[in-house]
Amino acid sequence: MQPSVQLITLGVSDLDEARRFYVDGLGWPSVLDVPGEVVFIQLGPGQLLSLFSAAAMDADLGRPGATAAGFTPFTLAQVVATEDDVRAALDAASAAGATIVKPPQYASFGGFHGYFADPSGFLWEVATNSGWHVADDGTVDLRPIEPT
Amino acid sequence: MQPSVQLITLGVSDLDEARRFYVDGLGWPSVLDVPGEVVFIQLGPGQLLSLFSAAAMDADLGRPGATAAGFTPFTLAQVVATEDDVRAALDAASAAGATIVKPPQYASFGGFHGYFADPSGFLWEVATNSGWHVADDGTVDLRPIEPT
Repeated sequence: MQPSVQLITLGVSDLDEARRFYVDGLGWPSVLDVPGEVVFIQLGPGQLLSLFSAAAMDADLGRPGATAAGFTPFTLAQVVATEDDVRAALDAASAAGATIVKPPQYASFGGFHGYFADPSGFLWEVATNSGWHVADDGTVDLRPIEPT
Repeated sequence: MQPSVQLITLGVSDLDEARRFYVDGLGWPSVLDVPGEVVFIQLGPGQLLSLFSAAAMDADLGRPGATAAGFTPFTLAQVVATEDDVRAALDAASAAGATIVKPPQYASFGGFHGYFADPSGFLWEVATNSGWHVADDGTVDLRPIEPT
């Protein structure tokens, strides 16, 4: 598993409020905005900040109600090329002492992914995403993909 | 305030355990390791993952005991050039609806910094750091600086 982060995802209780702050207030450019679901903002070369409903994040993690119970609605994510890359990353993390939170499987957004928690409990997602493209200047072109 | 993140800091209860996972286990390269205090790992061009004692993070934030009380020991940080850049970023964040958690001031690590919380409570630090240098290939050269 190589060191990199393509997505920093903040789970928010109020997506409109979060958009008002980052996009309208700070003027940060949204790359993809799906009202009521998610806002992606270009942070740096090949890297996005993702504002995501905390409840949707918990559902995706298979731990409904976790944020309300005090868990942190926050993940770091790697976008990798193949399903085998997802499996290999989770195997490497597990061998290093991580807890597998969601074994590799097809995701509702249309990719293939899994989650692990590091020994402190911080969550990492590793995913394929056929809608993820990065231009030579680092600009991310992210398009919704059809769920499988 | 421009969109960027130079440091993703995870507050951990056991720094040795966190180092064993990321550095020894996953094989990610540490850029600067101060045993008992902090480990910095190169994540991407001009960007580091920082493993920091959650208690030390809380002390730096001026909220001792916060992690134990359920707050998230996690920050995103921007490294900026000047003290005026720190002030301008916190002013912009405040104007956009952020809560100033720590007004701009000299930091124990030797730089000048401040913290704000976005409307969801996620913490951002904006700091100068004279020990922060990035090579043309994105490799971060981070050296301890003398506290002022």
